[in-house]
This record gives sequence, structure tokens and C-alpha cells, in this order.
Amino acid sequence: MAIDNPYYTSEFHGEYDLISIGPFDLEEGGSIPDLHLAVTTFGTLNEARDNAILVTTWYSGSHQIFRDVYIGPGHALDPDRWFIVVVNQIGNGLSTSPHNASGANAGIAMSRFPHVRIGDDVVAQEKLLREHFGIESPALVVGGSMGAQQTYEWMVRFPGKVRRAAPIAGTAQNTPHDFLYTQALIEAITSDPGFKDGEYSSNADVEAGLKRHAGIWAVMGFSTEFWKQELWRALDFGSREEFMAGFLEPYFTQMDPNDLLCMAWKWQRGDVARHTGGDLAEALGRNEAVTRIIPINEDMFFPVRDHEAELELTPHATIRVIDDLLGHLALFGVAPTYIGQVDQYLAELLSEKPL
Amino acid sequence: MAIDNPYYTSEFHGEYDLISIGPFDLEEGGSIPDLHLAVTTFGTLNEARDNAILVTTWYSGSHQIFRDVYIGPGHALDPDRWFIVVVNQIGNGLSTSPHNASGANAGIAMSRFPHVRIGDDVVAQEKLLREHFGIESPALVVGGSMGAQQTYEWMVRFPGKVRRAAPIAGTAQNTPHDFLYTQALIEAITSDPGFKDGEYSSNADVEAGLKRHAGIWAVMGFSTEFWKQELWRALDFGSREEFMAGFLEPYFTQMDPNDLLCMAWKWQRGDVARHTGGDLAEALGRNEAVTRIIPINEDMFFPVRDHEAELELTPHATIRVIDDLLGHLALFGVAPTYIGQVDQYLAELLSEKPL
Repeated sequence: MAIDNPYYTSEFHGEYDLISIGPFDLEEGGSIPDLHLAVTTFGTLNEARDNAILVTTWYSGSHQIFRDVYIGPGHALDPDRWFIVVVNQIGNGLSTSPHNASGANAGIAMSRFPHVRIGDDVVAQEKLLREHFGIESPALVVGGSMGAQQTYEWMVRFPGKVRRAAPIAGTAQNTPHDFLYTQALIEAITSDPGFKDGEYSSNADVEAGLKRHAGIWAVMGFSTEFWKQELWRALDFGSREEFMAGFLEPYFTQMDPNDLLCMAWKWQRGDVARHTGGDLAEALGRNEAVTRIIPINEDMFFPVRDHEAELELTPHATIRVIDDLLGHLALFGVAPTYIGQVDQYLAELLSEKPL
Repeated sequence: MAIDNPYYTSEFHGEYDLISIGPFDLEEGGSIPDLHLAVTTFGTLNEARDNAILVTTWYSGSHQIFRDVYIGPGHALDPDRWFIVVVNQIGNGLSTSPHNASGANAGIAMSRFPHVRIGDDVVAQEKLLREHFGIESPALVVGGSMGAQQTYEWMVRFPGKVRRAAPIAGTAQNTPHDFLYTQALIEAITSDPGFKDGEYSSNADVEAGLKRHAGIWAVMGFSTEFWKQELWRALDFGSREEFMAGFLEPYFTQMDPNDLLCMAWKWQRGDVARHTGGDLAEALGRNEAVTRIIPINEDMFFPVRDHEAELELTPHATIRVIDDLLGHLALFGVAPTYIGQVDQYLAELLSEKPL
């Protein structure tokens, strides 16, 4: 049975639409009886329907960070010029997810939620764009972390459709190290006796596990230098302990454990080489989008060299490295120098002619 | 009450001596009624008593890895020339530790074991060398990781005594990031219901927590590239899962949880600036040993730049970086190219005249 969680509301995520795309069969064999995608749009679709940008979301994230940090006049993602569609990933708590599966989806609530793959998100997004908005070919697909996984999936699954692509801080094929990292996150949650194999009655029952999950994020999500230089002071905390107790722990403890686990399972298995019998070079070789691969230099678990290895295999791609001591969670846009770099790299890409 | 654990025996650690240094008061205010240090020696002390090398141990380690990998004819740590004393750190399961505290120490067994600091180890080692072996001034103090913390503590606490020093893959002042990393390790153990606040009846009761602890080590102990290049194949495993289940998990699950926690607490608080009211520059400025600071280039949690920052503050020190894709756990000496680098840097140091 679905449970209430006030975090997954407009109070925390601003306005968004819930759009049904109907029954949805999943790669792993399960299905979602009535898949709803939580969507926000910015700007206006032009008559040629060729000014659409698709933005994908990351683990634990939603559209809201894009509204707050990435999208707006003066940014590369400028609603005056582009029609920007942010689609929340399946399982993120706003789109159909374990904790909110009700009505037609009541049979897959909580621990019964089926496994979802990156490919499912991308197929659902393509259908949404085409059927709901009449968009055949986005001018750009862009996302960070798991959003980068979705971006790569677009490049390989729908090579004729994606005109430009910008995976930020994420890889086309999840690395063994990231599998292990995500496994540690998963086990922090599932080992909590309050988790009850996914049949808890409130996320509060799993608070201890979610706090440990936050503690592991603290080690990997930021860089060693973030902690050494006490960059959390930029967020007005007086100590590391206050930052953990006032920011990183509540950030995660308000979330739903099954939703996080749905995303974590998906993250672990992101791999475009599923389309080519395991041949990553052949998969990435399909790309027809003008592409910017955009790592963050201090990222502990999507390091630059992992991006460089995929760059070698990706036609039409160049690399631009974001300089940010926050590491992976630079994606939050806390450093004042962050968004300017993203804007520069995306504006540069958007100014280039697609193939 | 102390418990039996067959891991902490000569079967796994070869021959060693247990040497009592008597009642021992600790920096944090507790005391050990009869502190035993587990010690191995190699070679012969010369008449001048000036050929002694002290080797300190790391988290979860013992003297045995030094016997297996670091010490022997042809190595820098050559028993034909040097009298090498390896002292197991307090709490490591061989020296007096939570799980083995019995007899005079029965009152501090298990959860009642007092907090121990790096400084306690070093004071105990100095006493052992002086009173038991008649050694006033070691020709070299060397250790990796927590062994490096002890080496720095020697440099700052006994600057007139240490003639040469070689901290490997460890820092003089533990970093905030490493505190958080160690905290995640601690919580993996203490969150196991079988831990029972430290009063379990066997380490097997805490197997799930110890496995999670191993899983977090997998993420940080090796480099991202270790996993990507499948370097575990060098240890004859056929898959990542087999390597975890056959090597890293059993490595830790055989150990005692309270012993690991004793060391983890100590590691978190390693800081030579305790001698100088928090002034790290003043503390390291006391060093009178000819020093090699030896980081490992792929270390995820003792990165090279943290060593470089302390190098700046340490007189008589130069830096040599070990090139090893294994990351921090390169210390195990699995890569055939590892020990040659250590030998070269230590031989170079041992050939230099002390001040």
C-alpha cells in the first residue's frame, strides 16, 4: 500500500504536472499499469517543434534543482529561446515510484515495485515527448549523474533523434567501482531493522539507515578537499557536524527508502552496451548527436578518466571539464563558479549545428 | 569478559612475543592495568644499539604483513644490517585489545575498553624500546596508514630520538574526510543488532556489519581503476563478487568488532597538533628526523595533496610518491611493482646521515 510522504509535494518541488503515459512494460519483465511522469516545462515550443531540450534527473533529485540553478534567462537553458522539458525519473518519488504507487498501480506499491532500468526511463521520455508534446527530435538532451546515464541511453537508443547531447558527471557504462559504491548505499538502508524488507510504514522508521546512507554520501559525494577547506561554510553552517545534521542528513532522511533503492538499482546497471551484446565501442559508435562530455574534476566516483575513456569511443564528442572542489555534488550548484562553467559549455554546444 | 577468536593467534600471524610493559595510563584518562605489546623482531641489535628500526602497524593489520612483504634480505628493511622491531598497535587484537583483555585486564574487556590514542601507542613503544631492548634512539621509524600516524607522532613527541622517519600513506593530522570515512566504517559495525553495544559473544554475531564494513573498504580502500582494470585477477579470483566473498569480506569478518572500533576511534583523532595547542606548523616544525613522506598516487583517502600540505610544514622532509593502481591497499604489496618502490625510497633514506 502506498504511503504518504510530504516531501514529494509541490511544497518542496514547486509546480509540476503528472502526465500519464499509460501501461508501461519494463525491460526486466515487470510492468507499471499506469505510468505517470512528473514533468515541468519552461518556455514555449516553436511551430517547427525543433527548440525542445530534454533535461533528465539524478539520484535523489527532481526537476526543482534545475528550476533553481540551471534554467532561466541568462542561462544556456534559456526559456526565452528553448522549450525545456524536465522529466523526473521513474522511482524518484514524484513520477510513479514505490512509495506513491496507488490506484491502478496499487499492486506494485512499496516492496512489490518492479525493477526499472535506465532504458525504461528513456523509452518513457521519448514516448512522452512524441505523444504528449509532439516532439520528435530534441535539440539537446542533458542531465547529470544518473541524468547523464539517461543522456547516453538516448544517444545510443535513438541516435537519429538526439541532435545534441551533454552528459554531465556520469558515464555510459556504470563502472565496477560505482556499483560497489551504490551497493554500500543500498546496504546502509536495507540493513536498518526498521526497513522491514521494504514494508515500513513511514520513512521515519528507517531514519538510522538513511542517516548512514547520508554518511556514505559525505565520504564520496564531496571531495576530500571540500571537507579540508570547510567549504560547507558557504552554506552558513558553523561546523562539519552541523552541516551533516542540518543539511546532508535531513536531505536524505526526508526521502523514501524504496524510492532511493529503485533508483540505486537502476544506477548500478546503467549500460548502453546492453544494445550491442556488451560491446561498448559499438554502442557509443552509434551516436549521431553533437556531444559535450562534461566531468567534474574533483568527482570521487565519476572521475575524469572514466569520462575520457568513453570520449575515445564516442564520435562527435568533445570534453569540457568543470573545475569544482565540491566534487560530484557540485551538481547542486553551491559554488558561485559552477553554473557559469555549465552555461558556457552548454551555450557553446547549443551554438553548434547538429549533424 | 574476553572472548576467544582464533584469528589472533600464531596460526595466522606467525611467531610473536607478548611483552608486558606494566600498568599504562592513557591520554583520555583511562588506564590499562597490564599492557601487553605483541612484538616481532628481525636481525640483531648491535653493541652501539644504534641499528634499530621501529615498524608500526596499520588499521586491521599486524606485524605479519611486514614479515611477508617488507622485511628480509634484499629489502631495505634487511635483518642482516638492521635490528627491526615491529610493534602491534594497542587494540589490534594481538597487543592488549578489547577482545583479549583478561587476567589483570579483565575489567576493561569488550565494551569497557578505554579510548586509546596514537600518542598512547607511541609512548608505549618508546618505553618498550628503552626498557626492554635498551634502545634510546631508533635509526628509523616507519609505518603505513595508522602506522604513519604513529611515525609522525614519534617525530613530534620525541624529536631528539628519531633519526629517520618514513610515514607511508598517512598524515600527521587526520583529515575531516578521513574522519567521516572512518565514521562510516564504525557505523557499519555498530548498527548491526548483533553488535549489542559491544557485548556480542562472538565476532560471528556481527558478520553482517563486518561485511558492510568490508563493502565500504572496497569503495575507498582500492582505486576506481583497480576495479575497472579488474586487478583483483592478480589474486586468482574469477569475478569481483568472488574477490569480495573470498578475500575482502573474510579478511574483515574474522576480526573482532571491538578491536576494529578501538583502532577506528584512534585513527579518527590522530593529530600531532595536540602537542602545540592545535598549531600543526609548530608541531611538525619540531621534527629533527631526516624524513621521507611517501604517499601512494592512487590513494582515495590519503591523497597525495594531503601529504604535500604536511611536507610544506615538515623540516628535513622530502617526498617520494609510490605509483600503484591499488590505491591505499597497495600497502598489502600485491602489485609486483610495489615493494621495489618502497625499498628504493627507504634504502635512499637509510643511506642518508641523520642530523
